Amino acid sequence: MKRRYLLTPGPSPVPSVIREAISQEIMHHRTDEFIQILQEVNEGLKYIFCTKNPVIIFASSGTGAMEASVSNFFSPNDKVVIIVGGKFGERWLEIAKSFGLQPLVMQIEPGFAPSTNELKKILQDNPDTKGVFTTLTETSTATVFDIKSIAALTKDKNILLLVDAISGLIQDQLLTDEWGVDVVVSASQKGFMLPPGLSFICINKKAESFLKNSKLPKYYFDLDKALKAYQKNDTPFTPAVSLIMGLKKSIELIKNEGLENLWEKYKKMSLATQAAAKALGLEVFSKNPSSSVTAIVSPSGLNAKDIVKKLRKEYGISIAAGQGELEQRIFRIAHMGWINEQDLIMCFSLLEKVLKSLGYKFNLGASLVALQKSFYE
Amino acid sequence: MKRRYLLTPGPSPVPSVIREAISQEIMHHRTDEFIQILQEVNEGLKYIFCTKNPVIIFASSGTGAMEASVSNFFSPNDKVVIIVGGKFGERWLEIAKSFGLQPLVMQIEPGFAPSTNELKKILQDNPDTKGVFTTLTETSTATVFDIKSIAALTKDKNILLLVDAISGLIQDQLLTDEWGVDVVVSASQKGFMLPPGLSFICINKKAESFLKNSKLPKYYFDLDKALKAYQKNDTPFTPAVSLIMGLKKSIELIKNEGLENLWEKYKKMSLATQAAAKALGLEVFSKNPSSSVTAIVSPSGLNAKDIVKKLRKEYGISIAAGQGELEQRIFRIAHMGWINEQDLIMCFSLLEKVLKSLGYKFNLGASLVALQKSFYE
Repeated sequence: MKRRYLLTPGPSPVPSVIREAISQEIMHHRTDEFIQILQEVNEGLKYIFCTKNPVIIFASSGTGAMEASVSNFFSPNDKVVIIVGGKFGERWLEIAKSFGLQPLVMQIEPGFAPSTNELKKILQDNPDTKGVFTTLTETSTATVFDIKSIAALTKDKNILLLVDAISGLIQDQLLTDEWGVDVVVSASQKGFMLPPGLSFICINKKAESFLKNSKLPKYYFDLDKALKAYQKNDTPFTPAVSLIMGLKKSIELIKNEGLENLWEKYKKMSLATQAAAKALGLEVFSKNPSSSVTAIVSPSGLNAKDIVKKLRKEYGISIAAGQGELEQRIFRIAHMGWINEQDLIMCFSLLEKVLKSLGYKFNLGASLVALQKSFYE
Repeated sequence: MKRRYLLTPGPSPVPSVIREAISQEIMHHRTDEFIQILQEVNEGLKYIFCTKNPVIIFASSGTGAMEASVSNFFSPNDKVVIIVGGKFGERWLEIAKSFGLQPLVMQIEPGFAPSTNELKKILQDNPDTKGVFTTLTETSTATVFDIKSIAALTKDKNILLLVDAISGLIQDQLLTDEWGVDVVVSASQKGFMLPPGLSFICINKKAESFLKNSKLPKYYFDLDKALKAYQKNDTPFTPAVSLIMGLKKSIELIKNEGLENLWEKYKKMSLATQAAAKALGLEVFSKNPSSSVTAIVSPSGLNAKDIVKKLRKEYGISIAAGQGELEQRIFRIAHMGWINEQDLIMCFSLLEKVLKSLGYKFNLGASLVALQKSFYE
């Protein structure tokens, strides 16, 4: 009878109405009925990505759409700047290397957001730069980057700005068209409240103009082919029909709440989580915390992995430890998608229990009081 | 209240027990519980692929695993033979071209299986051939290829045999290890009775030895990375958790029936479908019909697309028209996965109704009598 709670930064919990939508009888994808669903979903994605441009859906996890961002717009030896502030910046770098680009790494101290001035200088020193790869929310450090300021540097130049918004979208504001972001990538298992298996890529006109010059091989993630099918509300290959039926419901839920309200809601949950951590005498890891997930530094002498393991094994609560070098130092609590205020109350109640059992000293209930005050005062 | 019936060669119907498995509460993929599921699924896939070697799962449609078969084992300008007997042979060719291989096309007349002698000669004339790409079941013509004889030509040479078994697996026999097939690709939405969104690729030791020499770029479909994760029952990127929970159930169903029994069952359904077509005075298109799907030539003067459209619009039955040049000439009825004898009875009952309404002359009920005799005599 142990109940399970999911507060990980993906997969995030899937509401039962979406699970029901996904488990409907399967339909063929070349029918008027499914074309109608794709049409609705395509319109809905424009709303969520804050764009008038196409958002292509792939049957893949988010990394697939990241690969598409490299293989469709660039050619071997193209110089690109990659902002690396953690594991997902590193993923951009790995993909760029795999495809033979010439990446210039702008390394950010973990937990910090990139300095726009530093990027400005890099772009001045490297006028042959063809693209800048960055992250809206670096999940591994729970840090949100200032995409608006970054976009201001690339907007009027012949440089593409490509943003991994896999974890951040829907929680952390991203005004794609208004800010002038050229390519935005996301995936289904975070803010969209869906199981993993769909990725998204939004492409503006400037990005489209780069397609024809790319000399890298691609097939499954070929955006030219995908855009042609998109015009007819079709897909080049069999789409993940059941997940797209779920996506239709997900978009409905998000539209009903309204993006502005959601940005506000998750921001508040993030601030509450930070306050709860501080009330326990714990440090928030990020200097620029995201609205999607909060990273908390483990008390000195305690291994973050032990805290995470104990929460999962003994109480069925899944939160995330750090990744890579931060594995033992931080633990991360997500507030994205379907996760709500009551999940945080429940999570901190058991986090207190675990910290106490590991010998850490604090006032029992302090984090809950802090959450209550943040939410309801 | 119109009921819908799906007899298309993918997506094929998904049984409710699988739809329930898919709609379970989502779980995190880095938990003991999910690792346990992956372990079970990995073992089960070996059974279904008739192999002792790893079967890698990608979150993608089948074309993703086809791309992986090109990008992981070969390098630009590698000479490969591609057996093209329809749309899915053409897909191998398109992918090989996209990745800069040097493909030699062995063109097969639609509806025919490849001649092993002709292939033998091609391989003799081209001793620098590095791979042979072919199809178990060419869905577009409903033709099964003799993979055993083809494998006999490549087995003891330094040539990889790569088989697209997306539509055929589970219905058409494929003894991967026994015949010496090096790479087998499949996907979730056919014999596996799952929604689309998972692809599979089975790799033997000979194929593994080709990995290190490949100079093509890859990342999402990188098999070296996938195999390393596989050893730990892990995946390099977020797996399609819910579809994999469904796959566990699918494997259970298939194991309970037994592969030998299933091959027998679908073979019988194929023969029954052929008999039913003939009883209506119609021609079976393929000279070597598959156990997965049957292609029937539309009566002269009738457009196959009209038959398919009428069945779908008026009676909710989805079968498939031809593809490409065969679009108006043939229609295709699938007998794969969850589709059973009663579905065929129901389908032919309405097919007769539609043919009659279009003015085609035959004895009403003739196809049903033929089915009954095939099934129960």
